Amino acid sequence: MVFLPPTTSTTSAVDVGLKRSHVDYYRHLSSEARSRLPNPIKSIWKAAQVKTGTINMGNGDPHHTLYPICEMNFVVPSIEEHDPVQSWRSGTGEQNIIASYKDDPCTLSLRTAFAYGAGAGLKEVRDALADLNDRIHSPPNHTVSLSLGNADALTKCFRLLGDPGDSFLCEEFTFSAMTNAALPLGIKWVPIRMDNNGLVPSDLERILSNWDEATQGKRPHVLYTIPCSQNPTGSTLSLERRQQIYQIAHDWDIIILEDDPYFFLQVRCNSMGTTRAIAEVLPRSFLSMDYDGRVMRLDSFSKIVAPGMRLGWVTSNSFFAEKLDMLTDSSSQHPHGMGQAFISELLGSSGWGVDGFMKWILSLCNEYQRRRDLFMDVFRQKVAISGFATAEGTTIWDTPTVPGGPTTNTADLMDELFRKLLNSGLVMMPASTFAIVDRTGTTGSHINDRVNFFRATFVGTDVTIRDGLTIFGRTLEEFFF
Amino acid sequence: MVFLPPTTSTTSAVDVGLKRSHVDYYRHLSSEARSRLPNPIKSIWKAAQVKTGTINMGNGDPHHTLYPICEMNFVVPSIEEHDPVQSWRSGTGEQNIIASYKDDPCTLSLRTAFAYGAGAGLKEVRDALADLNDRIHSPPNHTVSLSLGNADALTKCFRLLGDPGDSFLCEEFTFSAMTNAALPLGIKWVPIRMDNNGLVPSDLERILSNWDEATQGKRPHVLYTIPCSQNPTGSTLSLERRQQIYQIAHDWDIIILEDDPYFFLQVRCNSMGTTRAIAEVLPRSFLSMDYDGRVMRLDSFSKIVAPGMRLGWVTSNSFFAEKLDMLTDSSSQHPHGMGQAFISELLGSSGWGVDGFMKWILSLCNEYQRRRDLFMDVFRQKVAISGFATAEGTTIWDTPTVPGGPTTNTADLMDELFRKLLNSGLVMMPASTFAIVDRTGTTGSHINDRVNFFRATFVGTDVTIRDGLTIFGRTLEEFFF
Repeated sequence: MVFLPPTTSTTSAVDVGLKRSHVDYYRHLSSEARSRLPNPIKSIWKAAQVKTGTINMGNGDPHHTLYPICEMNFVVPSIEEHDPVQSWRSGTGEQNIIASYKDDPCTLSLRTAFAYGAGAGLKEVRDALADLNDRIHSPPNHTVSLSLGNADALTKCFRLLGDPGDSFLCEEFTFSAMTNAALPLGIKWVPIRMDNNGLVPSDLERILSNWDEATQGKRPHVLYTIPCSQNPTGSTLSLERRQQIYQIAHDWDIIILEDDPYFFLQVRCNSMGTTRAIAEVLPRSFLSMDYDGRVMRLDSFSKIVAPGMRLGWVTSNSFFAEKLDMLTDSSSQHPHGMGQAFISELLGSSGWGVDGFMKWILSLCNEYQRRRDLFMDVFRQKVAISGFATAEGTTIWDTPTVPGGPTTNTADLMDELFRKLLNSGLVMMPASTFAIVDRTGTTGSHINDRVNFFRATFVGTDVTIRDGLTIFGRTLEEFFF
Repeated sequence: MVFLPPTTSTTSAVDVGLKRSHVDYYRHLSSEARSRLPNPIKSIWKAAQVKTGTINMGNGDPHHTLYPICEMNFVVPSIEEHDPVQSWRSGTGEQNIIASYKDDPCTLSLRTAFAYGAGAGLKEVRDALADLNDRIHSPPNHTVSLSLGNADALTKCFRLLGDPGDSFLCEEFTFSAMTNAALPLGIKWVPIRMDNNGLVPSDLERILSNWDEATQGKRPHVLYTIPCSQNPTGSTLSLERRQQIYQIAHDWDIIILEDDPYFFLQVRCNSMGTTRAIAEVLPRSFLSMDYDGRVMRLDSFSKIVAPGMRLGWVTSNSFFAEKLDMLTDSSSQHPHGMGQAFISELLGSSGWGVDGFMKWILSLCNEYQRRRDLFMDVFRQKVAISGFATAEGTTIWDTPTVPGGPTTNTADLMDELFRKLLNSGLVMMPASTFAIVDRTGTTGSHINDRVNFFRATFVGTDVTIRDGLTIFGRTLEEFFF
């Protein structure tokens, strides 16, 4: 583990008696989560299910014969194609139908999918995702709960773990739409320094060991991190850093919210094979090393199927899972049956199956790799040549970096450049949009001196990449001359 | 307006200067809602949309060519059938296909439905629902936001309007899964007396005028009510009561949360006709009389399409709508694209259309009327004959009432009876499950003396109704002899 030069206070986790062998999960719950009652009606159902053959007249669910949908189908690519994404985009590939029925056999009947269900989601989907989890992360003793995607999952985790006045840790540049969502709950963010390789473990350790509860309030007990293709910097944490961070989390009893929507897009080789073979070349998740159940891992279908799916899954210890499901029952309710039925059939024996799904993901990674290569080629020709900007990011979600002027007025200069780009017909995301300003006085960091980059992505078309970077290069030259 | 005999304190709304001509919506917001920031990334998008033709490289959305779904189909009943629900149930009717496409023309393209969207939902769906609203409620100046059904909508309203320590008003028997969801937010419930016709307006007036802020905290500023087929009592408020309640809400500056999932099932005649004609025989909603924007109306597809749809809509003034949408952007995110696409096509010109949808609803009402009649017939033969129970409820969601023993041990007796029924193989919902115990010391009411009923529904099959009520009648006789 790398340490910064010692600062004034160097309390260690051992000094404050935190080297714990097992985790007191309850201590991490918000008072809201602690006071939530189980649904009284669902408690009655449980009593009712004791005897088979019991007649239920207490139920208010419309009978399935009154659902006006008896069949649902989706036209998807055939996974038998050699490179399904390319065949699909060119319109040359075979197609498959993913079908669900109300009255005919299928993996998840529409009778069940269109009825009221439990907040955690239906068994068929949860089992399929637990199977996917097992093949990739082999997590010890974890439970899968469905979510409506990572925004839903993450903001629920904030409510589950955060009390007004709590300080949570996060990367100093991060997905601000989410960190902002925590502010009205009274959660304060403590930014951790990043370098080109992402979150710096020694800075995390420094913040925790220097923390003074007398002046700063309760020591942070939650870390929010995007370990792969971090948004906005594009960095992916190395295995070494992950192990260091997990160890620090263990020492200081920190819960890790592993927000990992880009995880499946990390495959870098053209290898095909079983899901387990692919798992070997994917980064090792925090979940996979979570021997004491302190990781809540958030996965999403947004980047690997489509954002409008609004489906994802949370993997956590069963205590947190139960509390999360109670929050879901008391808020959004269970995820929509349409998505649950689709995913069940897609991952089931009549659909792609888990291995087929991984083949789609591999093919998707190849397409993103192609776009990234194009982006970097055009960047070299149109932008880097001027010497005013470089592109960094170890992942397929890339972030060009624009060295700003003197650090004293970086923020102003970048704002001026953003407006100039806008006038030239190009939008890139200014770093200031993602910067977490330290309001706790903990980090001694001046993030406005480090906002000298834009987030630019290559998820658009080839034309967008070519035309956008051409404008970028031209505008930079005009700006700096 | 009916008044109870005067009690010790009789402050009126006029005395405390609350006869207001316009509503200060801001005062009703929770501190959480007040401190919520707009999504910084979406603010950048808005800037970017100023100039057409602007190239967007800041965007992280996967391109639509990478969505692995190009077509989505739902098999639904043809709405040309004379009685579509009966034809559908018997399997004799024609079927229609509701289709959405990614690359072919349709009402709402899957390119849009499967992309990231705004929390309020997509324009195509909101416009269709605003049209439906207009034809039925003709609400003055209201905005439609999509929800994930009424549990999602209602619990968001609690967060929008409720601060820790606030007291909210509700019916003394109500849908406790929802009132319980408000408790961890620090909201206290003040139950209002009900009679066979639902919430008693004079008791609402009494509670408000007797309220002493010095001892009881802030006067309630929110009323949660289920005005049609109230859950669990089955009562539907008369027009006169609705007008009285709205007037009291106006006088005391109360926001009304009109939770109305059973609204569309209220049609009592066999009339067919346009949506406007049907609207004439539906109850008048609080929304329809809302001249000062104090109603947040919650509609759902759960009872008229299927619960697993997880889609509904909230109609409110534009100020609350904006705050609600910001909460959605900071929590569940926009509703799933599958449901939005389905509803757009179903209500659009290639689907049933709004009039066709109302024809389905009429046909559904007839089927529920048939089940209700069967229920009442069997009830008379198997239960009422013994004299130990009566069935009440003016609506199609019915509630048999069981007169208990002496009021002093009603709760215990009912618990014993519930267990006896369970042993006999029948579940009915005990009233205690829905009883709101007054913890504010306001109402002077002893609800445990009034829990002498069960909620029983007729949404199951004919066999469930016959067998269930037979067990009920037999068990009651054994119990009371």
